[in-house]
Amino acid sequence: MIKLGLVGTHWITAQFAQAVLETGKYEISAIYSRNKENAKKFSVKIQQNKASLYDNFDDFIDSGIQVVYLASPNSFHFEHAQIAIKHDVDVIVEKPSFSNPDQFRTIIDLLKLHPKIRLFEAARNYHDPNFKVVQSTVKNLDLLQGANLVYAHYSSRYDEYLAKPDNPPNVFTRDFSGGALYDLGVYPLYDALGWFGYPEKIDYKAQLLKNGIDAFGWINLKYSGFSVGIFISKVFTSTAPTEIFGLKHTIEIDSPSELNQIAVINGHDKQFVADGSGRNPLFNEADDFARVLNDRFSEKNQSEYEKWLKIATQINQLLFDLRKSAGIDFPADNQ
Amino acid sequence: MIKLGLVGTHWITAQFAQAVLETGKYEISAIYSRNKENAKKFSVKIQQNKASLYDNFDDFIDSGIQVVYLASPNSFHFEHAQIAIKHDVDVIVEKPSFSNPDQFRTIIDLLKLHPKIRLFEAARNYHDPNFKVVQSTVKNLDLLQGANLVYAHYSSRYDEYLAKPDNPPNVFTRDFSGGALYDLGVYPLYDALGWFGYPEKIDYKAQLLKNGIDAFGWINLKYSGFSVGIFISKVFTSTAPTEIFGLKHTIEIDSPSELNQIAVINGHDKQFVADGSGRNPLFNEADDFARVLNDRFSEKNQSEYEKWLKIATQINQLLFDLRKSAGIDFPADNQ
Repeated sequence: MIKLGLVGTHWITAQFAQAVLETGKYEISAIYSRNKENAKKFSVKIQQNKASLYDNFDDFIDSGIQVVYLASPNSFHFEHAQIAIKHDVDVIVEKPSFSNPDQFRTIIDLLKLHPKIRLFEAARNYHDPNFKVVQSTVKNLDLLQGANLVYAHYSSRYDEYLAKPDNPPNVFTRDFSGGALYDLGVYPLYDALGWFGYPEKIDYKAQLLKNGIDAFGWINLKYSGFSVGIFISKVFTSTAPTEIFGLKHTIEIDSPSELNQIAVINGHDKQFVADGSGRNPLFNEADDFARVLNDRFSEKNQSEYEKWLKIATQINQLLFDLRKSAGIDFPADNQ
Repeated sequence: MIKLGLVGTHWITAQFAQAVLETGKYEISAIYSRNKENAKKFSVKIQQNKASLYDNFDDFIDSGIQVVYLASPNSFHFEHAQIAIKHDVDVIVEKPSFSNPDQFRTIIDLLKLHPKIRLFEAARNYHDPNFKVVQSTVKNLDLLQGANLVYAHYSSRYDEYLAKPDNPPNVFTRDFSGGALYDLGVYPLYDALGWFGYPEKIDYKAQLLKNGIDAFGWINLKYSGFSVGIFISKVFTSTAPTEIFGLKHTIEIDSPSELNQIAVINGHDKQFVADGSGRNPLFNEADDFARVLNDRFSEKNQSEYEKWLKIATQINQLLFDLRKSAGIDFPADNQ
């Protein structure tokens, strides 16, 4: 059993806790929160009363955990990951892992000093079996012309932003490296990189809120011979499907993050090629990470890990270039 | 009865012929085609055997027609409209009316020399009663955040292009001022201008075919406080709806050209605010134009006509600026 420490007490941490328990490969041995009361409440909520509770990050990291799951606000990932690696604790970091390529390079350099330690970006859609179903369906297309990915979902936090625009929730601030691109865009970007490769030219046309954060926008990825659009929003919901366009065939996907229903449309004919497993959507990543952690030096696991780290680095660069093209700066860039 | 001459023998001309007859305000008195056999076949097809047939444009214009309907390839509109105006014949020109703002300015100057003559752009969606339903629904939105308009439809002409890329159909050539923007983009652009006004900043990311024509692409229109995306394609079909985003309410439209089904969505609640009339979609424009032609100097009709001409000029400028932003040149620009 891998001893796991949890950081963050929001819904995503609860969902991840449930997923790791479902794999049967982890035990939740510690929970960290800046506020110990929150950690206590959270341990009750996820029914892990035996987990040790911490409000001091260094003590938490030294508590005997083997791997830490970081679901703190984006801007905290960098500092927390460094502490963990320096203490030889493996890291699972919620996407997007770091605020900019400078930060990521610092982490990569640090990992070189700790060759045993693994750092995973928790890109759950990338670890979903249906991700590969789309990948092979794309390869079998008559001709790849382009794609339009849509991930526009009203965030309940937007109500909080509107109520108190001067005291917005973390995900609606540049201080915490938030916004539509960093919160939602990372899913369709993983899809695009996994299915189509790294683009030649990129652009992001974003609608910014008064505090400079992106509420929604349109990403354009230009490849040789085809191009991909991504429409993201945190301030309204779109019912439009995600579509990949062949010549006469279109691959239709319910959601770029869920990847539950995948169909191939040809005129009036619609064939489903994959359906959701109904499993906790974080199960596959939790299981993949455990496999590598339990046998980190096998050739297969090492090569898979390197592939994941490489795409995480590419996503980090792409997110950075996209937000720069939209004129979005993070305070984390000047640290 | 207004004596009407028809130019062009494709499906759109047949549909327009049916629409004008449905209004009871026109008679089809002449048909022009570069090939008289085609004119003959077309007169039989639309059951207008009494119409005179012409393969000489000047003779056709002088045949006693009062108004001419131009559905020739886009690049021919300019020359044909000039001849008609000079012969004091009113003009209904299929969208997009002219290839660039220089041409449009020449036409406007010519119209000033013929103050009785009217020139209409046949933007059918703009004359659809449901256009105003959307307009007032937008005005009543809690907050206008943005919109995403989708008009992506596989053109049967693309088969012809693929079979003979060196001898492509007119709509897939720059020579005839074709491409996705000029053929399909004009509909959602009329919507955007009518519903949201003229944008402050524009951009078009297009996927070009080898001959430099745009197969599909994403338009971005930036307004003060909100922004609008338009996704167009002639080489694949998207099933995504057209959406206008309020805060909690979304206006959903079946198609930016058809405007048949218009609904307001709030969470799981969906209320239809308009349904298609089932009428010939060109009926309303044909009827609107007849009203102005039959009483061209009344204050109301004159002001309405000027409004239509103004938006047609704006559309022309916008199309030009958009294609320039995508790097698309037309030979018509150098004439």
